[in-house]
Amino acid sequence: MTQDMQESFVKDAPGAEIGMTYKDAGVDIDAKSKAIDRVRERAQATLGVHGGPIGHFGGTYRLATSGDQILVASADGVGTKLRLAFTLGGERHARVGRDIVNHCVNDILALGALPLFFLDYFATGRLDGDVVESVVGGIADSCLENGMALLGGETAEMPDMYAAGEYDLAGFIVGATRQDQLVDGAQIVPGDIVIGLPSIGLHTNGYTLARQIVGLTGDHESDRMLLTQSFPGSSQTIGEALMEGHPTYLPIVRPLLEQGLVRGMAHITGGGLADNLPRTLPANCIARLDPAVWHVPPIFSWLVTQGNLAIAERYRVFNMGIGFVLVATVENARKILSDVPSARQIGTIVVRLTSDESAVQGLSC
Amino acid sequence: MTQDMQESFVKDAPGAEIGMTYKDAGVDIDAKSKAIDRVRERAQATLGVHGGPIGHFGGTYRLATSGDQILVASADGVGTKLRLAFTLGGERHARVGRDIVNHCVNDILALGALPLFFLDYFATGRLDGDVVESVVGGIADSCLENGMALLGGETAEMPDMYAAGEYDLAGFIVGATRQDQLVDGAQIVPGDIVIGLPSIGLHTNGYTLARQIVGLTGDHESDRMLLTQSFPGSSQTIGEALMEGHPTYLPIVRPLLEQGLVRGMAHITGGGLADNLPRTLPANCIARLDPAVWHVPPIFSWLVTQGNLAIAERYRVFNMGIGFVLVATVENARKILSDVPSARQIGTIVVRLTSDESAVQGLSC
Repeated sequence: MTQDMQESFVKDAPGAEIGMTYKDAGVDIDAKSKAIDRVRERAQATLGVHGGPIGHFGGTYRLATSGDQILVASADGVGTKLRLAFTLGGERHARVGRDIVNHCVNDILALGALPLFFLDYFATGRLDGDVVESVVGGIADSCLENGMALLGGETAEMPDMYAAGEYDLAGFIVGATRQDQLVDGAQIVPGDIVIGLPSIGLHTNGYTLARQIVGLTGDHESDRMLLTQSFPGSSQTIGEALMEGHPTYLPIVRPLLEQGLVRGMAHITGGGLADNLPRTLPANCIARLDPAVWHVPPIFSWLVTQGNLAIAERYRVFNMGIGFVLVATVENARKILSDVPSARQIGTIVVRLTSDESAVQGLSC
Repeated sequence: MTQDMQESFVKDAPGAEIGMTYKDAGVDIDAKSKAIDRVRERAQATLGVHGGPIGHFGGTYRLATSGDQILVASADGVGTKLRLAFTLGGERHARVGRDIVNHCVNDILALGALPLFFLDYFATGRLDGDVVESVVGGIADSCLENGMALLGGETAEMPDMYAAGEYDLAGFIVGATRQDQLVDGAQIVPGDIVIGLPSIGLHTNGYTLARQIVGLTGDHESDRMLLTQSFPGSSQTIGEALMEGHPTYLPIVRPLLEQGLVRGMAHITGGGLADNLPRTLPANCIARLDPAVWHVPPIFSWLVTQGNLAIAERYRVFNMGIGFVLVATVENARKILSDVPSARQIGTIVVRLTSDESAVQGLSC
């Protein structure tokens, strides 16, 4: 292309009605900029003294350090809980924003890391400024509550990937700890105590099955009818129970870490107790659990009954009332149970003699 | 739930044919585990001496340091270039995996940061082990080439969010630099030289419009017909030209950074030269560009003609042949142009007297 060729196009440039534009093709760069401007202030409030400018090619984070650091990173998505937000709308968009932040915080917390910063990936068919503001606003607020910076993110408009009014949402977190404070379960021995922290609901896992059990089809009107119904054992509607948030366990767990009370931790997400607890167990240990001792929120009992779920299945798809697990010595467990009113002993560590034995037992008998 | 209630379900547990399962609902946790196992080895090859175990709740990265570090992070998606990979299949899945890694590397490189680690988010309607292996394998290979660890990622199966055979892909990168080596453009002054590094094609931006110009509808068979056609000025087919990869500029730029030759950088992605160059310019500077001096790959000339794109639009949607921009003093620019055969002077920095003036000029005249 020559300079001359370009000059001949000058009259067609801004605002001219000929030629195709990105906006015609369904991507509105200006709308994206405006939507991001609307949440910029809330995002900037999270930066504190460590975070750098938003809007450059990357977010910057000043890591003040006097020695080696272990950075701990995790990526996760909200999953199909999003579809309930599409149907119910309103503040549920902020809810899923907060959910993904708390999910990520708990993931790195399970290794003993405290959060430094977060980035989001938001992809949608057509950018709705109110929805972006709500989702990213929820993310920013939750970052602030967890004491971390929202360093940036990507907002993608892909008209032929996502339906109108729909979006996907993923989060990325980085935290830090020191080698001697990393909690990887290696110190766990038979005789240690397994402690559970209660979940509030499904958090962000098992929604594809839950939605099928409820009978949701994706038709917003009929789905709203189903979601406003009540279910046994609860004063909530099905929709309210399913939209309960994913809590952050940071305020509970941080003081325990500072006192060095914990040998291993697990965040109970997809795969449930059965798949997540083994991640922190040494090869010679079994976690023998006693599900009779903890409270199962009514929504799980109802879903299990309605779906006629086998026991192995329910503990792999749903958290069934336990959102986070701690493993500690008997002495430290006593202190944790005394300091944290919501904590319950849910099992003990016993010896595992062969790799044929399941690393988590007691859930199916 | 009591222990008794659970015992009554024992017979229904593993392998029993009654009750709903997550697999029935479209989510196959075992298939996911298997697909991840298949790329584990290639991912682990990237970990080197700094990265920790894959499969825990977070990836760990040992940051050896003797002082404050500036961590630089960025999140990005591949966008609708993915739809071409869906249609053309085969090695194009690995291609988009490599694309997202290189895109992220260039983003943090624009601030002077060198890559430490990467995580991916892969979301699909139904998990295809071959596709996951190809995509994540491409990611792992590209991480290795860029000298960084693939610390982990999220693979989500959401049958009612994504169509069969379709997926979305996002990446998250963390790199590091030191305060005195951060390149933020603040030192740029009028008289400095603007240098362009060539792009190979669209990289990962402008695909929604490009696909509309080509006339792609999403019907794989008719789209394949269109994509195998040739276009003027090139020996490639349209599909080959559109599937050219997003290169990493790290091998070219790293030696320049080590010599302290660069005052500002821009990665030319969504928004083109017009929107990305200002990110590195101080408020009192204009980048006056001369598009006549650089080579525009034939695919852009063809798309611009076919789509009858206004000049302002083409430089905002496409990179138009420039993938990465460096700003340097006259003396340093001379050295860069001598050391890097592919580099071209594409403009100069001039003084900007009022904020009414566009920060990038020369593109529409």
